[in-house]
Amino acid sequence: MANPNPPAGAAPLTVHPDRLFPSDAGVRALARRLYEAVRDAPIVSPHGHVDPRMLAEDSPFPHATALFVQPDHYVTRVLHAAGIDLAELGVGHAPLPDEQARRAWRLLCANWHLFRGTPVRYWLESELSDVFGVDEQPSAATADALYDQIGDQLAQPSHRPRALLDRFRIEFLATTDDPADSLEHHAALAGLGTRVVPTFRPDRYLEPAKPGWADAVARLGAVADTDVGSYKGYLAALELRRQHFLDHRAVSADHSHADAIAEPLDVAEAERLYTDALAGALQPNGATAFRRHMLFEMARMSCDDGLVMTLHPGIHRNHHPGTLAAFGPDSGHDIPTTIEFTRALQPLLDRFGTHPNLHLVLFTVDATVYSREIAPLAGFYPAVYAGVPWWFLDNPSAIRSFQESVTEIAGFSRLSGFIDDTRAFCSIPARHDMARRLDAAHLARLVAAHRLDEDEGLDTLTALVVDQPRKVFKL
Amino acid sequence: MANPNPPAGAAPLTVHPDRLFPSDAGVRALARRLYEAVRDAPIVSPHGHVDPRMLAEDSPFPHATALFVQPDHYVTRVLHAAGIDLAELGVGHAPLPDEQARRAWRLLCANWHLFRGTPVRYWLESELSDVFGVDEQPSAATADALYDQIGDQLAQPSHRPRALLDRFRIEFLATTDDPADSLEHHAALAGLGTRVVPTFRPDRYLEPAKPGWADAVARLGAVADTDVGSYKGYLAALELRRQHFLDHRAVSADHSHADAIAEPLDVAEAERLYTDALAGALQPNGATAFRRHMLFEMARMSCDDGLVMTLHPGIHRNHHPGTLAAFGPDSGHDIPTTIEFTRALQPLLDRFGTHPNLHLVLFTVDATVYSREIAPLAGFYPAVYAGVPWWFLDNPSAIRSFQESVTEIAGFSRLSGFIDDTRAFCSIPARHDMARRLDAAHLARLVAAHRLDEDEGLDTLTALVVDQPRKVFKL
Amino acid sequence: MANPNPPAGAAPLTVHPDRLFPSDAGVRALARRLYEAVRDAPIVSPHGHVDPRMLAEDSPFPHATALFVQPDHYVTRVLHAAGIDLAELGVGHAPLPDEQARRAWRLLCANWHLFRGTPVRYWLESELSDVFGVDEQPSAATADALYDQIGDQLAQPSHRPRALLDRFRIEFLATTDDPADSLEHHAALAGLGTRVVPTFRPDRYLEPAKPGWADAVARLGAVADTDVGSYKGYLAALELRRQHFLDHRAVSADHSHADAIAEPLDVAEAERLYTDALAGALQPNGATAFRRHMLFEMARMSCDDGLVMTLHPGIHRNHHPGTLAAFGPDSGHDIPTTIEFTRALQPLLDRFGTHPNLHLVLFTVDATVYSREIAPLAGFYPAVYAGVPWWFLDNPSAIRSFQESVTEIAGFSRLSGFIDDTRAFCSIPARHDMARRLDAAHLARLVAAHRLDEDEGLDTLTALVVDQPRKVFKL
Repeated sequence: MANPNPPAGAAPLTVHPDRLFPSDAGVRALARRLYEAVRDAPIVSPHGHVDPRMLAEDSPFPHATALFVQPDHYVTRVLHAAGIDLAELGVGHAPLPDEQARRAWRLLCANWHLFRGTPVRYWLESELSDVFGVDEQPSAATADALYDQIGDQLAQPSHRPRALLDRFRIEFLATTDDPADSLEHHAALAGLGTRVVPTFRPDRYLEPAKPGWADAVARLGAVADTDVGSYKGYLAALELRRQHFLDHRAVSADHSHADAIAEPLDVAEAERLYTDALAGALQPNGATAFRRHMLFEMARMSCDDGLVMTLHPGIHRNHHPGTLAAFGPDSGHDIPTTIEFTRALQPLLDRFGTHPNLHLVLFTVDATVYSREIAPLAGFYPAVYAGVPWWFLDNPSAIRSFQESVTEIAGFSRLSGFIDDTRAFCSIPARHDMARRLDAAHLARLVAAHRLDEDEGLDTLTALVVDQPRKVFKL
Repeated sequence: MANPNPPAGAAPLTVHPDRLFPSDAGVRALARRLYEAVRDAPIVSPHGHVDPRMLAEDSPFPHATALFVQPDHYVTRVLHAAGIDLAELGVGHAPLPDEQARRAWRLLCANWHLFRGTPVRYWLESELSDVFGVDEQPSAATADALYDQIGDQLAQPSHRPRALLDRFRIEFLATTDDPADSLEHHAALAGLGTRVVPTFRPDRYLEPAKPGWADAVARLGAVADTDVGSYKGYLAALELRRQHFLDHRAVSADHSHADAIAEPLDVAEAERLYTDALAGALQPNGATAFRRHMLFEMARMSCDDGLVMTLHPGIHRNHHPGTLAAFGPDSGHDIPTTIEFTRALQPLLDRFGTHPNLHLVLFTVDATVYSREIAPLAGFYPAVYAGVPWWFLDNPSAIRSFQESVTEIAGFSRLSGFIDDTRAFCSIPARHDMARRLDAAHLARLVAAHRLDEDEGLDTLTALVVDQPRKVFKL
Repeated sequence: MANPNPPAGAAPLTVHPDRLFPSDAGVRALARRLYEAVRDAPIVSPHGHVDPRMLAEDSPFPHATALFVQPDHYVTRVLHAAGIDLAELGVGHAPLPDEQARRAWRLLCANWHLFRGTPVRYWLESELSDVFGVDEQPSAATADALYDQIGDQLAQPSHRPRALLDRFRIEFLATTDDPADSLEHHAALAGLGTRVVPTFRPDRYLEPAKPGWADAVARLGAVADTDVGSYKGYLAALELRRQHFLDHRAVSADHSHADAIAEPLDVAEAERLYTDALAGALQPNGATAFRRHMLFEMARMSCDDGLVMTLHPGIHRNHHPGTLAAFGPDSGHDIPTTIEFTRALQPLLDRFGTHPNLHLVLFTVDATVYSREIAPLAGFYPAVYAGVPWWFLDNPSAIRSFQESVTEIAGFSRLSGFIDDTRAFCSIPARHDMARRLDAAHLARLVAAHRLDEDEGLDTLTALVVDQPRKVFKL
């Protein structure tokens, strides 16, 4: 912000009990009553990016920066846009040494005003207040004290990963994992029952155009103990690894490609393309055709083995090559593009759209497709569910627009329930709390407009928070 | 919804007098005053899909299912998405025998919660309450009693089609008809004056790529008593059938193709393509070019004969082939796609955009084009009017977004007025009532923000409900 | 509007102190307090289309029509859509003689109801009330009296252009100028300090496909005293003219092409295309490639010389050729189209997105790209700022949608601040006042939802109105 004098010093940090509720007193009271009913409900988190090793090892977090800054590209991209070097924030690196970590934390606190109006500010405030008892706003003046206060608590058993898992009331948490992963950390977490489970994320194995594809496939064959020299062997290896994930309690497979097209080839053509790809002789068109064919095959496998299929397409990954080279992927410059579902998914839905085993959850970063394509598809096909707003869209205004446009077309029963999709472990309860508040606000508005009675609002909200994700993700 | 125990039993069904109004007390009072002025205004319905035979024969409706379920793909698609077989709902078939009809009705009632938050719920509640005096919510427990209660009333003279036409205060009702139709039912309805009229819907005759085109054209030639062996004869047959519709009081021609492109060919090229098409030798590109040429010709004919031209493009019809094969078209899986008007209509508007005879009403299921293309075009070209939200968009949130974005660009005078576009006869008054409430709410918000004074709001609302559709559709 | 009897006579014209504020009493009081703090702040207008000659010569405006009707395509397009001939409104012509001007004014007043709900109505009311003390609504009955009342005041020294510049508290005003312009009027305005400055608008010199390109380039070479027979000379001429603009206090260069693609060619290819273009031998593909290359070069030059780069792409200019031929460009039929930024700007941002000298402000008339592309880009790249809604989008509902979607993704610090972009000099304060009210309303809603405290709201609003445009445009 151009403001040369952002307010310094110790402004109080308070999280108001009515935040995010409608301003009209009557509707606010309604929202409050509805929210109360789900405020303390358990958290079901069927898709996200928490590191399972962190939970398996259960080591203390070293400092506030490793928790709030380094892994959270929502935070670092805003600081980067203000001209701060990502290196100073420890992006893409192991936990920073203490002095550097403290400097990175100061950068966050001194630039606190940059987050005004964003959900990041909301989440961070909730985390600081609810998890660490912070009662002063971050600022240049309070940075060091907050760093120390959080550091002290992180050293306590109460703030170790598994203790937080309990404290956060997380009933179910899915991580995102490579098909060649041994899932050793998940095996180590088996004692927690079905609480922490892997997700099958095969993108890299389905895109022959990506550098390193052949090596990755070879590794997949090795861990599956299967000869992937043929297309048939390659399919078998994928099926075996899916089974390996199922054996470790996985419930879904997640897919993210440049488009959503799923178009089957005949087997001979698929074999030919696969052979060419292994030989490094596949043209770009062929690689795209093979990838689209394989997305179709993934749906076929989901019908066979029951893994829920989630689709996160249409993002231009790693838009700034210089940042990718220096800091790795997921460093805040995956930029949305237009996406099309109606034609793209027609062949898949023609074949599997009424298959009782298929649950296909569609996500988008192109908000125009909620009312144009996703809600209509979910409003007809039993297999299709509307995934909640993702990445740049997981903010109150986008969520409100999603709520209104999707539920007026498809009803509440076609929603996925809230998905946090976060890499920032500590933000999970704050994110779910925001979702519950926004759902309560939405239902309160429907009740106030005499479109639902309050009992129905209450019943719908409860179903949305707990029952719906359990049903959609087959928990 | 995942909720395993939707509330059963006899919850009261009430339609609140303030439903859909803003929650702020002052704005709500304003909306109420505005609405009162148009609540009982006559209904002008210039585009829809009511069966004229039903009105011509005026036979009693056999049961609630034939009225509320079988013909209403808004209802059946939601039940289908929940896994209910369309066959059980009697989709695409004649009125079901009583026992099957009763079972279908039970399915609707037992799944009443699926409609929460949708406009379908709003319409059905209004219809049940206002037309049949129902005062209990549909549910598994109340299904049979409601079925009997409605059935009893349907057997009364008061609930025959023409009696309802009067009761609904329908001043004008346009059906949608094939150019080869004899319009015998409309002839039989001539005694009702200008109240029930046909609409010329020539799509199938303009798309040589569609199966059966040549046969359809031959039939058109036969009913027009014109040799359609030449392009010239084909044009003449279309013009004669438009005249036949005009002779039966038609006011508009409705068009729905995959895109909105209207691009003229020179006559020699059009003749060549037509000849090839009759010979079954037309390539897909040629078929598309011919169709786009013919849309341009339709505008030319509208300038000549004065039929209002309505355009409903950009929908992927019959997305699920299995459902089409089993249940026929209009079974709930016409899925929206992106649509473009700015470039597509440029040649048409270059030639006819300021022609005093042309009224071109643009509809869309891609909500992004309201503010980007439709309102700007309607805000410059005297021929263009912005048609109200259609199909998946005819819900309160989409309508509010339409109201705001279109009227702030083009003003109220460029709107079509409300179009119900329904196949569900009984829903007509409920749909118009929803539109009046939402228009009153929109104007009340403008008055509350001191952008209009209340007199202007009242004047605008009255014009919108009655005068504007009369003007746009030349009644 | 179909209304045959728009209210005639002398309805009072009042501009309510609370207009555009939220209706909830508490939120409204908040908005009022916030607005008070910026109501009288100076106006910074870094992009617009005021004629510098008007200010240099400081002659009185001849009549109301020359001020409110003839130059304002926002006004004339609405009247045109109602069937009024643009010739009767004096579009594209010098100030009309008095009798014709009076008739044009009567057309505006008699059709006042057409503007209901539009921002044009809001601006005109503010101008009439605040600048001319008018207290009756325009109508057929009041037209002549208003015309005379305004005319009397325009003859006074108080209503000459420079007096109004002071009265409007315009601190900074950028015009839009041709690179070959001598900037004599700006030279004459040097006495006003940095208040009235030119903007470099090179579009026509960058598009070899446009008729007259070679002549324009030759003229550019002449005024730059540079041989433009080679690509190198052409670049030098552009650089020299940028320097000429900088010497006359310019701060930015403005660009508007059919798309936003900026894609560099190697020098040899650029030279080849340039040579072909001069020879009239360039194919359309080559012309497009050259234009996209030159947009990239413009960014390079901005890094070198510091001119802020503003981009207004994606509009179909002069959609109605007949109107262009009769009335010239900017006559109200520049119609929006879809626009894409994510892929289009990737090469430019790869090279310059973190360059400390580049400020790239992105505007759009396709509202879908705010949340999908512009905010994400501005939320990562330090060079990118989100320009406020433009042309058809500068209305309250589009601005609210912009505010919510952009600031929740990128925060307030990535906004350009308000840009009026107007040709209607007198509308500048009304447009800025609308923006301040809408910003106050937006911040009041955030405060009411407990997402900001009131002090932060106040600080953010002040920064947005004054500091942010100064920072983004390097004032």
